[in-house]
Amino acid sequence: MPDRILLTHGSGGSLARELVEKSFLKVLNNPLLARLDDSAVFDFSGTLAFTTDSHVVSPIFFPGGDIGRLAVCGTVNDLAMSGARPLYLSLALIIEEGLAMSDLDRVVASIQRAAEEAEVKIITGDTKVVSRGSADGLFINTAGIGVVPEGVNISGSNAKSGDKVILSGNIGDHSIAVLSKREGLSFATTLESDCAPLGSLVAEMIAVSSSIRCLRDPTRGGLAATLNEIAGQSAVGIRIEEEKIPVREEVLGACEMLGLDPLYLANEGKLVAVVPERDAEVVLKAMRANCYGKEAAIVGEVLSENPGRVVMKTGLGTSRIIDMLVGDPLPRIC
Amino acid sequence: MPDRILLTHGSGGSLARELVEKSFLKVLNNPLLARLDDSAVFDFSGTLAFTTDSHVVSPIFFPGGDIGRLAVCGTVNDLAMSGARPLYLSLALIIEEGLAMSDLDRVVASIQRAAEEAEVKIITGDTKVVSRGSADGLFINTAGIGVVPEGVNISGSNAKSGDKVILSGNIGDHSIAVLSKREGLSFATTLESDCAPLGSLVAEMIAVSSSIRCLRDPTRGGLAATLNEIAGQSAVGIRIEEEKIPVREEVLGACEMLGLDPLYLANEGKLVAVVPERDAEVVLKAMRANCYGKEAAIVGEVLSENPGRVVMKTGLGTSRIIDMLVGDPLPRIC
Repeated sequence: MPDRILLTHGSGGSLARELVEKSFLKVLNNPLLARLDDSAVFDFSGTLAFTTDSHVVSPIFFPGGDIGRLAVCGTVNDLAMSGARPLYLSLALIIEEGLAMSDLDRVVASIQRAAEEAEVKIITGDTKVVSRGSADGLFINTAGIGVVPEGVNISGSNAKSGDKVILSGNIGDHSIAVLSKREGLSFATTLESDCAPLGSLVAEMIAVSSSIRCLRDPTRGGLAATLNEIAGQSAVGIRIEEEKIPVREEVLGACEMLGLDPLYLANEGKLVAVVPERDAEVVLKAMRANCYGKEAAIVGEVLSENPGRVVMKTGLGTSRIIDMLVGDPLPRIC
Repeated sequence: MPDRILLTHGSGGSLARELVEKSFLKVLNNPLLARLDDSAVFDFSGTLAFTTDSHVVSPIFFPGGDIGRLAVCGTVNDLAMSGARPLYLSLALIIEEGLAMSDLDRVVASIQRAAEEAEVKIITGDTKVVSRGSADGLFINTAGIGVVPEGVNISGSNAKSGDKVILSGNIGDHSIAVLSKREGLSFATTLESDCAPLGSLVAEMIAVSSSIRCLRDPTRGGLAATLNEIAGQSAVGIRIEEEKIPVREEVLGACEMLGLDPLYLANEGKLVAVVPERDAEVVLKAMRANCYGKEAAIVGEVLSENPGRVVMKTGLGTSRIIDMLVGDPLPRIC
C-alpha cells in the first residue's frame, strides 16, 4: 500500500478495493457494511429522521477532535435534535491526492471511536479522490438515519410564550480551539473543542419530559443564529440573560483579543432546548446528570412580544438585540 | 443577491439563509424540506435501502447532463440496484467561493428535473463554502433512502452457475462525453452522457421476475469492474461475448484514438442484471419496453468454473481474461 493517497485510489479498480478493504472495512467493521452492495438494506418500522452534513474543517486535526469525530458527531447531533435515537450513518470521503495514508487511518480510527461512543454504525460509504489542488486534504459527508420515539414531536416551530430556554454548557470552545490551531495562537491553558455526540443526553431529557418543544445544536452562527431561527420558525420573541450564559475564561479572552462575540461562535457538543416552564427544572436536572450536560443552565425564556426577535439582558442591565449576522466571522470551522 | 458565491454563503448567518430560501427551497420545494429542522422526519415501515455517493465530475456541465443530474441519478441508481424503489434524497453541496450564482441555479434546476423524473424528493440538505482554491467549483453528495419490495433479495453475492448476464444498453457513453468536453475533443456526432435514473426500469424488471439475483450499475471501473465484483462476491466465473456487448461507433472510435477499452469506461444510466436462465427472456423483454433499456441484450452467462474470474470470448473467437484494472484510466468522471 502506498503511503499517500493516489488518484487511482478513487477509481473503480483494484487499488480502490484494497483501500476500502484495508482502511475502511477493517476498522468500521460491521455486517451491513461488509456486504459491499450498492446500498445497505435493513428493516425499519416507525418514525424515521434523516439528515446530512458535509465537513470541511481546516485543519483536519485540532485540539479535542478531528474531522472524523466532527463528521460523526455533527450528523448524530442533527438526528438527536429531532428527538431521534441515531442508528446508522453513511460515510462519503472526498480526498485530495497526496493525503498521507497515516492521516487517513487516524481519521478513520477516530470515526469508529466516535461511532461507538454515539452507538451508531457506519453502514454504507463512498470514496472519491481529486487531483492535488482540487480539494483541501479531506472533506467528509455523513448522512444519518435515526428513529423518533412515539409521541415525540420536536421542531424549531414549537416554541411557545412562557417556555424556558436551556443551554447545555459553555459556548465557543469549538470555534476557538479550531481557530487557535489554524492560526497558531496559543493560550495559557489548552482549550479543546467540545465536539461530542449528544444522543444519550437527548434520550435522557426525553425520558423525563414528553413535552420538549425544540432542540437545536448551536453550530455555525452560534447561539445567536440558533435562537433567531427558533424565534423565526415559532414566531415568538426570545429573551436571554448574559450573566447566565456559561463561557470559559479562555474563550472570553480569545474573543476580546480577536474582536469576536461568543454568541456567534460555533459549538459541536452543545444544545439549546426550549421546554415548557413546568418541565424546565426536571429537564435541567436530567441534563446535569449526563456527562455532556454538566454545565447546563436556564438562560432565557420565550415571549409573545416581538415575534422573530432575540433580546439579551446584558450584565450592565441594558437590553441588546441579538441579530443574525450576515455572515459567520470564521469560515471552515466545521 | 450577489452574482457569485461568497464565503459568507456557507456561514450560519442571514446570507446563508437567503441562499437556502431563494436558491434551494423555491426550486426543490416540498413540505418535508420546507420545515428546515435539523432532520427530515417521516414514517416508514418495511425493508429500507440506504446509500451515499459524492460527485466530483469535471467539468460540472457536459453533453447530456451535469453534476446535479449525475448526483440524483447516481444515488437513485445505487438504491435501485438493491431492488429498492427510491423515495428520498439528501443533498449536500461543497461550493468553491466564486462559483457563478447562475451556474448554481442551473445545477439546482437540473437536480429538481432529475428528481421529478426519478420520482424522488430532496428532503434534507447542507451547504458548505470553502475559499477559492480549496475545492474545484462544486462537489455534491447525495444520500438516499428507498423501500425494497417484499420478497426481493438482490445482492452481488447471489449469482449462480447457469444464470444469464443482461446488459441494459450501450457502454462508455458517459465517460467519453465527459472526456470530450473536458479535453475539448470533438467528434463527428455529438455523443451524450447516458446519465439517467433507473428506478422505473428496475421496478418493471422485478414485476416480471421475482428471482433476479444481482443488479449493479457499471459506473467507475466500467462493465469489467462490475462483473469482477459480482464474480468475486458470488464466487462464480462469468463469461461474456464481445460481439453481444453494444458499443456506439463514436465510443469505439474515441477509444481507439485514446487507447481506452470500452469495458473499463464508466456509465451512469446502465445496469447489469444476473437472472436465472428461465427468466432471462421475460426480463429482457420488460427491459426493452422501458425507455432506458431499449438496447438491452444478453451478453454472457455465469459458470461454476474459475470462480472470481471474468472471461470474454472475443470477436476473433479467442478467450481473453477481463481483469480489474489497478486504477481507472479517467479520474473525476463522476
